Amino acid sequence: MEVPFKSLITIQPTHPLPIYVQITNAFIQQIQQGMLKKGTPLLGSRSMAKLLEVNRQTVVAAYQELQSQGWIESFPRKGCFVAQHLPTVKPKPLPTEIVATAALRPADALPNFPIHLPVFISQQWAFNDGLPDVRLAPREELARLYAHYIRYGEPALLQYVSVLGNNRFRENLAQHLNQTRGLSVSAAQIISTRGSQMGIYLVAAALIQAQDTVVVGQWSYAASTLTFQHFGATIETIPVDDEGLQVEELAVICSKKRIKAVYVTSHHYHPTTVTLKPERRIRLLQLAELYGFFIIEDDYDYDYHYANKPVLPLASADTAGWVIYVGSFTKKIAPTFRVGYVVATEKLITELGKIRRIIDRQGDTLLENCLADMLLDGTLKRYTHKTLKIYQTRRDFTSRVLQEEAQAWIQHQIPDGGMAIWARFDPDIPLKNLATKVAQRGLYLSDGQAYQPLNACRMGFASMNLPELETALHILIDTLKKF
Amino acid sequence: MEVPFKSLITIQPTHPLPIYVQITNAFIQQIQQGMLKKGTPLLGSRSMAKLLEVNRQTVVAAYQELQSQGWIESFPRKGCFVAQHLPTVKPKPLPTEIVATAALRPADALPNFPIHLPVFISQQWAFNDGLPDVRLAPREELARLYAHYIRYGEPALLQYVSVLGNNRFRENLAQHLNQTRGLSVSAAQIISTRGSQMGIYLVAAALIQAQDTVVVGQWSYAASTLTFQHFGATIETIPVDDEGLQVEELAVICSKKRIKAVYVTSHHYHPTTVTLKPERRIRLLQLAELYGFFIIEDDYDYDYHYANKPVLPLASADTAGWVIYVGSFTKKIAPTFRVGYVVATEKLITELGKIRRIIDRQGDTLLENCLADMLLDGTLKRYTHKTLKIYQTRRDFTSRVLQEEAQAWIQHQIPDGGMAIWARFDPDIPLKNLATKVAQRGLYLSDGQAYQPLNACRMGFASMNLPELETALHILIDTLKKF
Repeated sequence: MEVPFKSLITIQPTHPLPIYVQITNAFIQQIQQGMLKKGTPLLGSRSMAKLLEVNRQTVVAAYQELQSQGWIESFPRKGCFVAQHLPTVKPKPLPTEIVATAALRPADALPNFPIHLPVFISQQWAFNDGLPDVRLAPREELARLYAHYIRYGEPALLQYVSVLGNNRFRENLAQHLNQTRGLSVSAAQIISTRGSQMGIYLVAAALIQAQDTVVVGQWSYAASTLTFQHFGATIETIPVDDEGLQVEELAVICSKKRIKAVYVTSHHYHPTTVTLKPERRIRLLQLAELYGFFIIEDDYDYDYHYANKPVLPLASADTAGWVIYVGSFTKKIAPTFRVGYVVATEKLITELGKIRRIIDRQGDTLLENCLADMLLDGTLKRYTHKTLKIYQTRRDFTSRVLQEEAQAWIQHQIPDGGMAIWARFDPDIPLKNLATKVAQRGLYLSDGQAYQPLNACRMGFASMNLPELETALHILIDTLKKF
Repeated sequence: MEVPFKSLITIQPTHPLPIYVQITNAFIQQIQQGMLKKGTPLLGSRSMAKLLEVNRQTVVAAYQELQSQGWIESFPRKGCFVAQHLPTVKPKPLPTEIVATAALRPADALPNFPIHLPVFISQQWAFNDGLPDVRLAPREELARLYAHYIRYGEPALLQYVSVLGNNRFRENLAQHLNQTRGLSVSAAQIISTRGSQMGIYLVAAALIQAQDTVVVGQWSYAASTLTFQHFGATIETIPVDDEGLQVEELAVICSKKRIKAVYVTSHHYHPTTVTLKPERRIRLLQLAELYGFFIIEDDYDYDYHYANKPVLPLASADTAGWVIYVGSFTKKIAPTFRVGYVVATEKLITELGKIRRIIDRQGDTLLENCLADMLLDGTLKRYTHKTLKIYQTRRDFTSRVLQEEAQAWIQHQIPDGGMAIWARFDPDIPLKNLATKVAQRGLYLSDGQAYQPLNACRMGFASMNLPELETALHILIDTLKKF
C-alpha cells in the first residue's frame, strides 16, 4: 500500500518556520504517532519534492535533519527508510480525565473556591470588594521610571538578585515603615512579595503543618482562610463585633488547645471594616506571648484611613517577634503592580526566603526599584494624599445617599478607613436575589454568600467616581424600591 | 516620681510625619511598652508644649488624637491621664530565637539549600550556570512597550485578571508553541507563571503528596529536586549517559513501585547538556502510558540550539496528557523578566490556577502583554536569531580554547545547545581548590560540589563577550598550569 505522504506531511507556506523544518517536524510527528512505521521507505527527494510541491533541496535538507536526529536511515542506492531501531508507538490514548483526577491531591483541588474576583465582574458599575481606582494610579511616574530602568539600569538589575528582594527597596521600605507605622525594623527583617497574598502564602507555608490550629474571625478574608486550609490547618473562629475580634474568646480557645497563629486585619477588619480597639490589641499581644502563637497582621490598606490618623499596627507594639506584619502596594496603586512585603524576625524572614526560592526565585526587581524611588522622592506620599481625599469624598457621598435614601433596606456605619462600606441588608431583601436583579441593570453587587447568614456584603466605593457612584446607587435604590 | 516625658517623647523636626502624629505615636508606644502606666497624669498642654519645645496646639492635637483612640482620658479641671481601662503591658520579651525555631516546620527549613546563585557571584568574570547576556536583551523594545501599556493601557489591564494569565499572551503563546515545537494546544491548556521555577512549583504542589516517588537523573537540576522534596516526595535517581536519562532503568523502578512523576530536561540535559535520544524519548512516553506517571518536561532554553534545529519536545508526541511541559522566557531575555508557562491538560491547568490564586493571585499582566506583542511582530524571533549566533560564537571560542590549551585538565564535549559547557576536570585538580584559587583572581567557577563525586561543573559561556571569555579562560588556564 502506498503511503499517503501528501496528506501526512502538510506545509503552510506563510508559516514563520522554514519549509524544511515544517517537513522535518511533520515526519517526526507521524513517526511518533505510529502513522509511519519503522522500515517504511520514503520517496526519493526528487519525487517527494514533486509530491509536496517544494524545491528538491528543501526535501534534502529535511531528510538530512531527520537522519541527524536518528529518525530515518539512509542506505546507498536504496534510499531512506524510517529507522529500524525506533520502537513502534501505539497511539492508544489513556482515559486522561480519570487518570489525571486520580493523580491530583484532593486537598489541592479547592473545589468550592469562592470567586468574588473583579475579573469576573462584567457589569459597567461595580460595588466591588474594595479596590482602588486604577485611573488615579501614578501611571506617568511609573512608566517613566520603569522605562528608565529597563533601558539604562545596570546589568545587575536585570540579573538574579536576593530571594528577599531588591535591597534598595527593602532599605527604603524599612525607613518608611519605621517613620509612618511606629515599627523599628531593618531591611533584614523584610522580604518583598507579590502582593499581600504571597506574604500570607509564604507565612502559611513556613508555619503551618497539618492539624495546626489557626484562629480567624467568624467572618474573615476568604483567600487567607483558604491558604491556611491548603496547608492543612484546622480553622477555629471567634466572634467579631464593632470593636473587632472578640479577643477574650481567643483566650478561651487558648486555655483548651494549642494554636499556631491568629490572622487579623486589625486596622480595617475584613469584611466589616471596624478597627480593633486598643484594649483588645494589647490583650491580643499578651495572649500571643503567654501562649506562644503568631499574629499574622494583614494591614493591606493601612494608608486609607479617613478619621484622624491611622492607628499604629500591632507590630509596632510587639517586642517578642510574635507579630508577622503583611503589607502591600497593590491596594494602593493597582492590582497589576504586585508588590507587597512581610516584616518579621530575621530568622523567620530567612525561612520565608528559602520557600520563595522555589516558588518564583525573586520578585520584580525593576518595579521594586521604581517604588524605592517613589518612596524616596515623595511621589507615593503625594499620591496617597491625593487619593485619600478623593476616596473620602466617594465614601461620604455613598454613605450619605445610603443614609438618606436607602435606610429602609440597608444599615451601615461609615467606615473610618478602607475602600468599602459594610452594608447589612434587611432580611426581606435576600442579597442573592438583589444581586441578580441589579446585575441585569449593569451593576455588580456581591451576593453576600460568603457571609451567610448575615445578608450583608462589602460595597467598594473607591473605584467609581461621583457620577458613576450616583448611577450605581440609583440602580441599587430603584431596584430596592421595586423589590 | 516625675515622669521623664522629655526623654520618652522624642521628636524629629525633619521627619515627614507631622509633629503631632510623632507625639501621638510616641505616647502610644510608651503606653504599650509599659513605660507609661495606666492612670499616669500627663502634663497640661501648655507645660508639655514647653517641655517638648513645640507649639501648644500641637500638643492639644496629639492629646485629642490619643483620646479619640482611647489611650488617654480627660477629666474636667483635672487634666489628662493614661486610660484606666488599658491593661498594663509587661515588657518581658520571650526568647524569640528558640520559640520561632520550634514553631517552624522542619521540612520547610531546607537547611542545606545549595546556593549556586549568580547574585552571590562577586567576581568580575564568571562561568555561571548558563545564563544569558543581559546586555543583549531587547531593552529598548521592552521599555517602549512597557511604558506604553503603563501609560495608555485600558484600565482593565491594571486590574485583576484571570489566574491563568493575560489572555492575549496565552493565545499568542499557544500559536507560537504549535508553530515552533510541534505542539497542538489552545490557550486553555496554558497557565503563565513567574519563570519555569514557578511552573515546577505549581506542578509539584498539584501532584505531589508525602511519600510519592519522583524520579530524576543521577545528576539533575537542584532547584527542581528541592521543590519535589519540599512537598514530601521520595526521590529516586536513574543514571545519565551521553544519550540522556537511561530510561530502561526507569522501567526497572516502575516494575517495582508506583511512581508519580519523572522530571527531565530532555532537550539540553541539566547539568550535562546532552539531548535525550529519540529511542529513549519514545520509550519514556510508552512507560508513562503503561505505568501512569507524569513527565515533567523542563524545556527552559529550547531556543538555544546550535546543531541543525531544535529537537521537538516530548510534549509534541504526547497524545494522552502525561507530559507536563514547562517553558520560560527568563533564560531567553533576562532573569528579571520572570515569565514562564506550563502546558498541560485543561483539567490540570485549572488545578494549577487554583493554587496560583493563593500564591500570588496572577502574573505580570503588563509584561505578558509586551511579550504577546513581541511574539506577534517578530521582535522575539529576530532577537533569538541574533543571540543564537552570538552565543554560538562564544560557545565555539570557549570550546576551542579548552580543547587547544586545557585538554590536559578539562574534558568536554561541545554542547549542541544551551548556554553552558559540561566540564569534567582531572581528578588531580579538585574543583573546590581550583574554584577558590580562580576566585582570588576575579573569576567565578562553580566548585562542583553539587555533582560529587564527579569533579565536574557547568561553565556558562553565554554571558561573557569574547574579550571577557579570553580573560576568564586565561585566568583559568594559567591557574591550572600553576596548580
